[in-house]
Amino acid sequence: YDYDRPLMKTQVPGPRSKELTKQMGQIQNNTAINFFCNYEESRGNFLVDVDGNRMLDVYTQIASIPIGYNHPALLKVVSDPNNASAFVNRPALGILPPESFVDKLTEGLLTVAPKGLNRVQNMACGSCSNENAYKAMFIWYRNKERGTSIPSDADLSSCMINQTPGCPELSILSFSGAFHGRTMGCLATTHSKPIHKLDVPSFDWPIAPFPRLQYPLDEHVRENAQEEARCLEETEDLIVKWRHKGMPVAGVVIEPIQAEGGDNHASAAFFISLRKIASKHGCAFHVDEVQTGGGATGRFWAHEHWGAEDPADIVSFSKKLLTGGFFYRDEMETDKPYRIFNTWMGDPSKNLLLAEVLNVIRQENLLAEVTRTGKALLGGLYELQAKYPNLLSRARGQGTFCAIDVCKASVRDKLILQARDNGVILGGCGDLSIRFRPALIFKEHHVHMFLNVFSDLLAAH
Amino acid sequence: YDYDRPLMKTQVPGPRSKELTKQMGQIQNNTAINFFCNYEESRGNFLVDVDGNRMLDVYTQIASIPIGYNHPALLKVVSDPNNASAFVNRPALGILPPESFVDKLTEGLLTVAPKGLNRVQNMACGSCSNENAYKAMFIWYRNKERGTSIPSDADLSSCMINQTPGCPELSILSFSGAFHGRTMGCLATTHSKPIHKLDVPSFDWPIAPFPRLQYPLDEHVRENAQEEARCLEETEDLIVKWRHKGMPVAGVVIEPIQAEGGDNHASAAFFISLRKIASKHGCAFHVDEVQTGGGATGRFWAHEHWGAEDPADIVSFSKKLLTGGFFYRDEMETDKPYRIFNTWMGDPSKNLLLAEVLNVIRQENLLAEVTRTGKALLGGLYELQAKYPNLLSRARGQGTFCAIDVCKASVRDKLILQARDNGVILGGCGDLSIRFRPALIFKEHHVHMFLNVFSDLLAAH
Ligand code: FES
Repeated sequence: YDYDRPLMKTQVPGPRSKELTKQMGQIQNNTAINFFCNYEESRGNFLVDVDGNRMLDVYTQIASIPIGYNHPALLKVVSDPNNASAFVNRPALGILPPESFVDKLTEGLLTVAPKGLNRVQNMACGSCSNENAYKAMFIWYRNKERGTSIPSDADLSSCMINQTPGCPELSILSFSGAFHGRTMGCLATTHSKPIHKLDVPSFDWPIAPFPRLQYPLDEHVRENAQEEARCLEETEDLIVKWRHKGMPVAGVVIEPIQAEGGDNHASAAFFISLRKIASKHGCAFHVDEVQTGGGATGRFWAHEHWGAEDPADIVSFSKKLLTGGFFYRDEMETDKPYRIFNTWMGDPSKNLLLAEVLNVIRQENLLAEVTRTGKALLGGLYELQAKYPNLLSRARGQGTFCAIDVCKASVRDKLILQARDNGVILGGCGDLSIRFRPALIFKEHHVHMFLNVFSDLLAAH
Repeated sequence: YDYDRPLMKTQVPGPRSKELTKQMGQIQNNTAINFFCNYEESRGNFLVDVDGNRMLDVYTQIASIPIGYNHPALLKVVSDPNNASAFVNRPALGILPPESFVDKLTEGLLTVAPKGLNRVQNMACGSCSNENAYKAMFIWYRNKERGTSIPSDADLSSCMINQTPGCPELSILSFSGAFHGRTMGCLATTHSKPIHKLDVPSFDWPIAPFPRLQYPLDEHVRENAQEEARCLEETEDLIVKWRHKGMPVAGVVIEPIQAEGGDNHASAAFFISLRKIASKHGCAFHVDEVQTGGGATGRFWAHEHWGAEDPADIVSFSKKLLTGGFFYRDEMETDKPYRIFNTWMGDPSKNLLLAEVLNVIRQENLLAEVTRTGKALLGGLYELQAKYPNLLSRARGQGTFCAIDVCKASVRDKLILQARDNGVILGGCGDLSIRFRPALIFKEHHVHMFLNVFSDLLAAH
């Protein structure tokens, strides 16, 4: 059902997009709009815009379209009259779930539960997933501190006015360059770009250095190991320091690959050691797979590449999983109702679609396909950076979750715009990187489509 | 398409609900689950459970079902093949909106824009709506403080590590008993129940007293005015105090009727004076209509009852509006891209459904209907509290957005369970209140159905 190639009619944004963007400016801030889309006509790996341009999409709505546009299996879910009720009656899932919800969780999310994490809490987006994961860690930590889950009278009265001990002085340790969302709890652990954080009050929580590795990783094993050791040491120091400050670290949160922050990788050994340090100091370990989860690295979860028996206490997800939520270890379960709660707690119609996405991933063996496609993509990027060493560097990736750096931000931004005018949608991340976030149905011939356009642009630069 | 009366086959939860609840306990915390629902069979004002019980729903998924279950107009939106693409291709709305989105906003949300608020930002739920409204107020306030929207180098570098001046010491003033959501920014302004806040770190933000009025309001005008004057004075003192503390109040947030906190009302004069105090001190004024908005008070927005020319700087919404978001004054617009931003920024399929909900509200003249139904409901509650003065007190309401207090929490909770076993779903709020949150299609004969069940229970007590 996919198109076979890009087809460009105007520059992007074209006149119709420009007109609509102008109209949108009357209603809300329109300065981030790239162009307007014709989603009805979009298919598979190709996004069609309102000016009739058809582009190969290697960015997929910020990594959130799992199996391409208008996948027939998903259209079938919507057109099935038995499902209509799920789309029009959004329940308060925490109190009045639909009959099928246990089955949908069992056939859906639980089939991809990370090792050791038997429980899953559905949520609606990446931000509420992380916010509630943080809350679960705070609650777990305080119960440990108190030695009981029964709060004191002082806890109960002080929390109502935002004061200790009920609202405790606890922190979440995050990493420089991290992105975990933009609501105020998440935002206190986000350190990607100033514009994400500027002017918003925050918490004085510890921020550890994320390893700044050299690529390809296997050619810089020793230096990278040193850099990772440095970061681990500093992380442990911060945990101790914050405990002495009277604001203990209840949880450590990290992305398996820092995505918004510039596609920063670290070794399996780093993550496994970090998890051990967290456990040693009584901190929960939260792996944020909002952008990495769902198969783009060639495994369903990026942390599976660590080969760890006991990778995490909490794994949060959203984007490609269409719903949000987090998996968690039994002992992170709250004992009382209404602690991890909000009105909707997700949206069952998204679980319906997700179950179908998981079926397609299995039936079409998409994780193996992603691994194959990813090899072609990374191989192509290596070749290009060898050919244009002044322009490109640091090609890196796992599966199709790849990136490459460009010499200057202005050149990077220009290349992205030029690629778009030539029918390929790319995204930037960090200061200098182009990130590749195709759907799981991106094949080797799509890689070549992209490489042809991109190498022409580089040659002309 | 509605049923004509409740039909009970078992106690609630029945055996099937109990079995499913047990299964859910293997997957996630199940302690808040009331029962499992058969949404396919539910219709209009009646919610059907998995044991075949059919109940009159006066709670409607925590006030979030606008025009009843399985409304034919909404089913038609889902079954229309032209809409399928909106349900399967969720865009990153902030960068790649669908062609129809400007029209959907214009025909939908903008037709109900509060006075003076010409702009609207779509979001996904009540929490992200309020979080982003707070961010908009912080950004606006800092731009005023700086005298320019251009941040200093110190702003840019310090914000990346959660420090001032980039992450400023600013606050949002909220009220005792308020509920504005449960993500960490919202939660710092929520003061409804300890279980909502316990063990979660918070901000030291000012909390003003919300007037504790006597009902009926028109019989206690003088005492209530005194109480409101006291609260206004204390609010102004807090604004001054927090400025002196070095943590100025960027915005004041308030619900037109405190909903989770126990259906606490205040007079139009109170809100208008409060808004003036906020303006006088340079604070933005944010009216949170997440629970009150959408017509249940007999006006589309509860704040319309104030009759104010200039009611607010920001009005946030969700629940009955199916999508989330906030309306705002022109000068609250951010000047740069990616400040108010996240991956999805809402969900266009919810805007499709909302446009249809608004059509139904207009075609069926539902606001007038709500006013009529509300009179019958409040009248009935007055009669009951006159008849059972030891059991009931403080009947109050606007439209069908009504509540009544019960002498003791245990009696309140028991009455709610008994009503359910007799085919009427009610909800509690605050310490002692029963709240009424029917859909907009709740008619006078539904009021009588409820009153019959309820007065029998009271008589038997
Ligand atoms: S915070 Fe996740 S949907 Fe609103």
